[in-house]
Amino acid sequence: MHRIYHVSKTGSDRNPGTEAAPFLTIQRAADAAQAGDRVVVHGGVYREWVRPRNGGMSDSCRIVYEAAAGEHAVIKGSERVTGWSRVAGNVWKVSLDCGFFGDFNPYTHPVKGDWIVAPTDCEVHVGEVYLNGRSFYEAASLEEVMEPARRYASRLGTWGGRREEILRPEDTVYQWCCETEGDITTIYANFQGADPNEEETEINVRKACFFPERTGVNYITVRGFEMMHAATSWAPPTAMQEGLLGPNWARGWVIEDNDIHDSKCSGISIGKEGSTGENEFTKYHRKPGYQYQMEAVFRARNIGWARERVGSHVIRGNVIHDCGQNGIVGHLGCVFSEIYGNEIYNIAVKQEFYGHEIAGIKLHAAIDVQILHNYIHNCTLGTWLDWQAQGTRVSGNIYDGNNRDLMVEVTHGPYLVDNNIFTSPYAFDNAAQGGAYVHNLCCGFTNSYPVPDRATPYHLPHSTEVLGTAPTYGFDDRWYQNIFVGGEEEGRSYGTALYDGAPVSMEE
Amino acid sequence: MHRIYHVSKTGSDRNPGTEAAPFLTIQRAADAAQAGDRVVVHGGVYREWVRPRNGGMSDSCRIVYEAAAGEHAVIKGSERVTGWSRVAGNVWKVSLDCGFFGDFNPYTHPVKGDWIVAPTDCEVHVGEVYLNGRSFYEAASLEEVMEPARRYASRLGTWGGRREEILRPEDTVYQWCCETEGDITTIYANFQGADPNEEETEINVRKACFFPERTGVNYITVRGFEMMHAATSWAPPTAMQEGLLGPNWARGWVIEDNDIHDSKCSGISIGKEGSTGENEFTKYHRKPGYQYQMEAVFRARNIGWARERVGSHVIRGNVIHDCGQNGIVGHLGCVFSEIYGNEIYNIAVKQEFYGHEIAGIKLHAAIDVQILHNYIHNCTLGTWLDWQAQGTRVSGNIYDGNNRDLMVEVTHGPYLVDNNIFTSPYAFDNAAQGGAYVHNLCCGFTNSYPVPDRATPYHLPHSTEVLGTAPTYGFDDRWYQNIFVGGEEEGRSYGTALYDGAPVSMEE
Amino acid sequence: MHRIYHVSKTGSDRNPGTEAAPFLTIQRAADAAQAGDRVVVHGGVYREWVRPRNGGMSDSCRIVYEAAAGEHAVIKGSERVTGWSRVAGNVWKVSLDCGFFGDFNPYTHPVKGDWIVAPTDCEVHVGEVYLNGRSFYEAASLEEVMEPARRYASRLGTWGGRREEILRPEDTVYQWCCETEGDITTIYANFQGADPNEEETEINVRKACFFPERTGVNYITVRGFEMMHAATSWAPPTAMQEGLLGPNWARGWVIEDNDIHDSKCSGISIGKEGSTGENEFTKYHRKPGYQYQMEAVFRARNIGWARERVGSHVIRGNVIHDCGQNGIVGHLGCVFSEIYGNEIYNIAVKQEFYGHEIAGIKLHAAIDVQILHNYIHNCTLGTWLDWQAQGTRVSGNIYDGNNRDLMVEVTHGPYLVDNNIFTSPYAFDNAAQGGAYVHNLCCGFTNSYPVPDRATPYHLPHSTEVLGTAPTYGFDDRWYQNIFVGGEEEGRSYGTALYDGAPVSMEE
Amino acid sequence: MHRIYHVSKTGSDRNPGTEAAPFLTIQRAADAAQAGDRVVVHGGVYREWVRPRNGGMSDSCRIVYEAAAGEHAVIKGSERVTGWSRVAGNVWKVSLDCGFFGDFNPYTHPVKGDWIVAPTDCEVHVGEVYLNGRSFYEAASLEEVMEPARRYASRLGTWGGRREEILRPEDTVYQWCCETEGDITTIYANFQGADPNEEETEINVRKACFFPERTGVNYITVRGFEMMHAATSWAPPTAMQEGLLGPNWARGWVIEDNDIHDSKCSGISIGKEGSTGENEFTKYHRKPGYQYQMEAVFRARNIGWARERVGSHVIRGNVIHDCGQNGIVGHLGCVFSEIYGNEIYNIAVKQEFYGHEIAGIKLHAAIDVQILHNYIHNCTLGTWLDWQAQGTRVSGNIYDGNNRDLMVEVTHGPYLVDNNIFTSPYAFDNAAQGGAYVHNLCCGFTNSYPVPDRATPYHLPHSTEVLGTAPTYGFDDRWYQNIFVGGEEEGRSYGTALYDGAPVSMEE
Repeated sequence: MHRIYHVSKTGSDRNPGTEAAPFLTIQRAADAAQAGDRVVVHGGVYREWVRPRNGGMSDSCRIVYEAAAGEHAVIKGSERVTGWSRVAGNVWKVSLDCGFFGDFNPYTHPVKGDWIVAPTDCEVHVGEVYLNGRSFYEAASLEEVMEPARRYASRLGTWGGRREEILRPEDTVYQWCCETEGDITTIYANFQGADPNEEETEINVRKACFFPERTGVNYITVRGFEMMHAATSWAPPTAMQEGLLGPNWARGWVIEDNDIHDSKCSGISIGKEGSTGENEFTKYHRKPGYQYQMEAVFRARNIGWARERVGSHVIRGNVIHDCGQNGIVGHLGCVFSEIYGNEIYNIAVKQEFYGHEIAGIKLHAAIDVQILHNYIHNCTLGTWLDWQAQGTRVSGNIYDGNNRDLMVEVTHGPYLVDNNIFTSPYAFDNAAQGGAYVHNLCCGFTNSYPVPDRATPYHLPHSTEVLGTAPTYGFDDRWYQNIFVGGEEEGRSYGTALYDGAPVSMEE
Repeated sequence: MHRIYHVSKTGSDRNPGTEAAPFLTIQRAADAAQAGDRVVVHGGVYREWVRPRNGGMSDSCRIVYEAAAGEHAVIKGSERVTGWSRVAGNVWKVSLDCGFFGDFNPYTHPVKGDWIVAPTDCEVHVGEVYLNGRSFYEAASLEEVMEPARRYASRLGTWGGRREEILRPEDTVYQWCCETEGDITTIYANFQGADPNEEETEINVRKACFFPERTGVNYITVRGFEMMHAATSWAPPTAMQEGLLGPNWARGWVIEDNDIHDSKCSGISIGKEGSTGENEFTKYHRKPGYQYQMEAVFRARNIGWARERVGSHVIRGNVIHDCGQNGIVGHLGCVFSEIYGNEIYNIAVKQEFYGHEIAGIKLHAAIDVQILHNYIHNCTLGTWLDWQAQGTRVSGNIYDGNNRDLMVEVTHGPYLVDNNIFTSPYAFDNAAQGGAYVHNLCCGFTNSYPVPDRATPYHLPHSTEVLGTAPTYGFDDRWYQNIFVGGEEEGRSYGTALYDGAPVSMEE
Repeated sequence: MHRIYHVSKTGSDRNPGTEAAPFLTIQRAADAAQAGDRVVVHGGVYREWVRPRNGGMSDSCRIVYEAAAGEHAVIKGSERVTGWSRVAGNVWKVSLDCGFFGDFNPYTHPVKGDWIVAPTDCEVHVGEVYLNGRSFYEAASLEEVMEPARRYASRLGTWGGRREEILRPEDTVYQWCCETEGDITTIYANFQGADPNEEETEINVRKACFFPERTGVNYITVRGFEMMHAATSWAPPTAMQEGLLGPNWARGWVIEDNDIHDSKCSGISIGKEGSTGENEFTKYHRKPGYQYQMEAVFRARNIGWARERVGSHVIRGNVIHDCGQNGIVGHLGCVFSEIYGNEIYNIAVKQEFYGHEIAGIKLHAAIDVQILHNYIHNCTLGTWLDWQAQGTRVSGNIYDGNNRDLMVEVTHGPYLVDNNIFTSPYAFDNAAQGGAYVHNLCCGFTNSYPVPDRATPYHLPHSTEVLGTAPTYGFDDRWYQNIFVGGEEEGRSYGTALYDGAPVSMEE
Repeated sequence: MHRIYHVSKTGSDRNPGTEAAPFLTIQRAADAAQAGDRVVVHGGVYREWVRPRNGGMSDSCRIVYEAAAGEHAVIKGSERVTGWSRVAGNVWKVSLDCGFFGDFNPYTHPVKGDWIVAPTDCEVHVGEVYLNGRSFYEAASLEEVMEPARRYASRLGTWGGRREEILRPEDTVYQWCCETEGDITTIYANFQGADPNEEETEINVRKACFFPERTGVNYITVRGFEMMHAATSWAPPTAMQEGLLGPNWARGWVIEDNDIHDSKCSGISIGKEGSTGENEFTKYHRKPGYQYQMEAVFRARNIGWARERVGSHVIRGNVIHDCGQNGIVGHLGCVFSEIYGNEIYNIAVKQEFYGHEIAGIKLHAAIDVQILHNYIHNCTLGTWLDWQAQGTRVSGNIYDGNNRDLMVEVTHGPYLVDNNIFTSPYAFDNAAQGGAYVHNLCCGFTNSYPVPDRATPYHLPHSTEVLGTAPTYGFDDRWYQNIFVGGEEEGRSYGTALYDGAPVSMEE
């Protein structure tokens, strides 16, 4: 009774979708597939935003989307662009009619929203230019594009004012900028000698590669794809959290064995939908941002935030890298999920924008979430558990080469951090309470401080029901059998410096 | 502190929106307006779908959209189309690239969904052709367009199999049809001698004239506009209920003094949003339609269906006419609303499609809704209160020239029908219980019958909280001081005929 | 930090409760014990109603009440009564001031309430007389007590009008009756030659042996006691369901290794509390009983009926016998519980009163309840799953010598009945849908029928959230690998007789 | 169909309750009365705790309890006691078996619980001794009773350390004490020359005069009684709040034209029930008291705290006086109520115990409560609105001779204080925000200060739904057209003194 639909670059959307007569687009299969069906995508590049129309009925009656065995199926949020004309030297330009973009033009849409800190003197857009798969850096002006300066470290705000290196300085001279007049968007880019009409030159145009338009599309499996080039927006806990890939407020997704990269902001989102708040602090400034965030929790309860409807996702075996904000992000929607066996790296290392809410894995309200056996490296921050990390376990992960490895903030626990290896010089910030740290190897220095001036919710055990809110008095943790190799930053004493100096706790 | 934005056909969206330097589009003002602001629209035709971005904060801090005093501001969901070429005789055609329509092409979107009964042998689309403001009739084929037959009465199913006249048979020879091949949609129309390139020929292209894209945009006032030509979809109680104008699941709108007409399906919708169900019966056939409808009620509770968030609208002083399904429709979203002083006429009189869910005013779950002092005439059914009419009052309305005046169905009350004048030959169907009929003048025959095989919910008084479900045992009504002039249809005895014969209660 | 309190018949309530200086009463320990504490009760008879004052905090931080290892601790709801005076022959009487009973006098409190059918010509009281531990039979008058007739089978209504034998007819001549005038209650009893002042003569005076007075006393363990002689009231699904032992609407109790017997109505109750309904059908007759029952479900949701707060009990290894209505009863409060390894017998076999709601295990709304490996014999009905048996499993039980073994009624499943042995001649009634019967050995006849005229709720999977209500269309079951030995009652054909004849489905 | 039951001191509970054959006790009528019925109580003294068994169905279908027109019906929580024997001099004693008290002995039950401050060196009991209607003062020992010292002012903690006079020092030499050994309670009292066996000597024995035992008994009217002498317990916002009279967590009571006095703690309670918390701070000390209070709000939501079920009471035209803690108290249960036209005086002026939570009217979560046209005098604090005073109005009241007139604390409003006359030297404390003070005459000094370290909930407008929690930043108030006569205490500057000095904001 359940069907298998095939999708192939040689197919047609007027076909029945059989193996012999496959569909051409994944979306065509997504429109047809019902609970219990399977969509097999054969090798090739699919430039689509797949918006699953239906969901499965239960964990055992799913809709499965998978790359055909042994074939390389790629979904791209970008289009290839030719027709570049040379401006001068290495700089070329192309002009695109807004009709090219449809409803959404990434080149008029800046990275902004709640908790964005920088840049303030110019705009960074969610658009992006890629030359043979490698992303460029956005410049503030055509002048900069004409004479691009190499960048070595973040020029923006950083955590504690520390220096944050850019991973590949040599790439930073590939710069671009854009301008939109009336219906025409023009992109200028410095290709450093390459001919953009000959090489594979792409720009991102879609918000996502695989993401339902409506909420409540449950029990989808996504397996074995490469997905890249999404023009995702900034994803704070007080807005719709877009991802290159994600369930958009649903239950029971399995995301496994994919290679996900080059999302402008977040790779996988298992986070908040929009009706519970859309950057109200940035828009209205009526209340502090964390007040809007708290209201989002209560609003979410009233639209059905509960184990029955949201969360319980499995994210395993994926490689997630080279995203601007997060490898995995999720406020509220992440509850009861398991994230294991993933490799996550190069998150936010281009340093094009800065705000809070940046990490390899950034979760709020990670109730009963399990983060196990992941390898998280070369991120500005490895993992950040913020607000309502209750019943959360971080176990068996390897953190390496991150600017910081772990932060746990304004939560009351209980949460468990065990059997991890933290090798970075700055191991973790503990601005929380109710944690147990057991059997970790910790090579860097650590920091603990209270946050007495902000109340955050706590919940009934294993539930999204709110039981109360309380400030973080701090320090009520348990430490068993950890190995601290040592580690202290120059001129910075243990456990007090950041708290005294950093105003972050006041505004977030 | 609160601002007034002006919109004028002579303005520009780069202007600041002041009276001296107004905006060009209403949408530009809608993007700017915040709680407390006012948008004044000056005379002219605005071909837009206005999607209010922000809402007000409370009943006393609204966002007001109004036509400038004494000026005639019109919002149309249609575009004017020229470039017609003559096919033969009175028949012309025009071909449009799908880019013309953007994301939504009404000419590939049929009127279908739960409880649609007919036609079954062809498709009727939500698109429409207008010549000098008057709508055409869709034909099943180009042949019919070439030689259009005059239509006098419905050829489709009708209530009880009764003959339903078409209001203006002379208009029915203005026929059209459409076909879409690849990216090209071609429309054929018989203009009966007129030159479509000379006259004002329009086709609808947008789903709505004034309707937020997201839910929860509260406390909007819409005053003094003419709005017309929306390609609205069929609006059953188990799907997103689109309207030419409406709040899309919000609280506290005031819709007053507008002239609303020529919506393909519904004029004003104060009904259901989509996440609680989208024609599951039509899509899946797993359960009876009413079972999906019952689930929609419980799902709605879980996304916050309560007095605090939804309903409490005021719809007054509007003229609503010439819509294909409903003048006003609303399931769930209508609670605690007042509908008074409106004139509603010519609803569903073109007889192009038939299903249940057709009436001048069709409400489900009209908890504490007040329908007062309206003049409802020349509709196939004047007012239909279906399921959960609890605390509902229908008072002081005049019903005239309708095929039926009133139907109340599978509800447990209490509800009150008082001081109305029912002049049509078929006064009402009472398939409910818990009603009080007081001081009505009733010129037609009436019908009462139980519906023992379907349970519908009942609620705590003045609340959306469900207290239980029960079947309609029927007949538990109160009758005081009504005047029954008489009236009986030929060959049809009082109170039993339709119930015995009509299978509707089994499937709806 | 956690304490162990000792209770001994040689103790004093002024003691500190240590092993050396134990308390005298269990209640004294119950007033002192807090989460994490243990109460050890040494051998002896405790005539108390233990009302735990506090509960535990979680499954791992409980309050444990246990009989001291190797000692026999008995809690009795009865008092020993002496001072009997001979009336005539074997009949004696005793008069007791109402002060003897405190707030509750079982001898003025009849067995009555919703769904009680008989007797109608006299009252049966929740009081009881015991001679050397064996309970008497209540007579309708002193005359009957003077000349007691031996009883062989039920004189009252029975399921399908079948003959139901009384287990020990020789005991039925031990009869009693009572009368209360002003403040004096007089009990007459025929001791068949025994001298009640010499033998151990007891009458029950307390509603329960171990049952909190307030709701929400969570995480209690009760282990190793013998408990007997409670004057429990009739426990329908529309009233407070009293039990000799039970949590009274709480979460996470463990009841293990106890010997529980001679409760007038129910042995263990994991059922409904009172605020959601108290026999409204019997009191008011405004609506059918099942309508009140449905309202109880919705009312329960509104007082927090959810996995977070109610149910998840474990009942294992107990012997439960000789109760008048149920071995275990539970509406709503039973969700997510496990009942395994118990022996349950002699339930309702005295045939002193009759109503629906009688079985060895009688559960309503047994969402995700597991009934495993129990031995249930010599009951009028072994197990009855009524309404909302969703996610319920009945597995590995042995049913023997029951008048009927199993009934499943007006539920939509899914539920699973597997690997059971049904040896009684009347194996089961299936008035439900959505069941799977797998690998059972079934020696008796079975019966299946729909109940189309009553809607009952169904829920989100593994949740108490209501998704809808529906009637029982019936017959949608799965049967795999069962062995049917045969079995049919004389003059009764398979699968239709009871449904055609019995009006029970109309009123329950 | 609705019945009128009569109760008379000449009646009998075996009567049918007609006017000709009335009942003897009000409770007998309360057991019989159903929705729509009326209970008429004729003149005389009824020593009962009336526990209404049933409630009404709606505002228009109530159960009314009223004193017969022109007759004086009194309900007393006390019993008359004779059998006093002289100990020495003016001191007499009486010994009472615990059977005299039934389940509740006020003389073993101290005034204690959350936010009780004093006394700490001895216990004050909820019991009380009255000589000819006048209450005594409890002494710490028999020695004090033998030689009673006249008391002039509070010896306990007071607000800001100010001196609080005792109203009638001459009464303070009427002292008593009690002791309980085993089953015997002995009361000693100094009758100052009176013979207690000759005079009317009473002691309170019951918790209430008119108060249901179970929650959810809605729509009761209580009119025209005198009620006195209840042994009510301390009523903090974190416990069951007992009152001499009250609905016990129900909806729609009308309490009018009664004379209510001499309740040990609170006169009328429209407050919290017990399942949401019972003095957990005092019992367990696991969290700060206000944390338990916040949890009580969320717990209450989960047992159905909503307009549909709780509150909407009317308390009008009553005289309430001489109670130890509150004239009217209510946390949560008070929502949507109206309190108008009452006279409230002599509240907490005996100074026998001290804690927070003492006032003529003390409400928490007074959402949309109207306090209008009351005359409140000679109280230690006139009116105290604490936490969640949102939509609350205090209008047209006269405050006179109070130690303080008004306190509003840790609430975010909006609330309105208008047209009141505050004549006391210490007009009010404003430790809140979001208030509007309009057209008041204010003769005393006032005080405003923030409470930044404690978050309290705020709600959707006109709803009990929680939207968030926030600290009290303070000072965001509106002041229009108030007249400040002046007033400042010696050595105390305006607006800062109490805040700097008083630790109350840290612990409450």
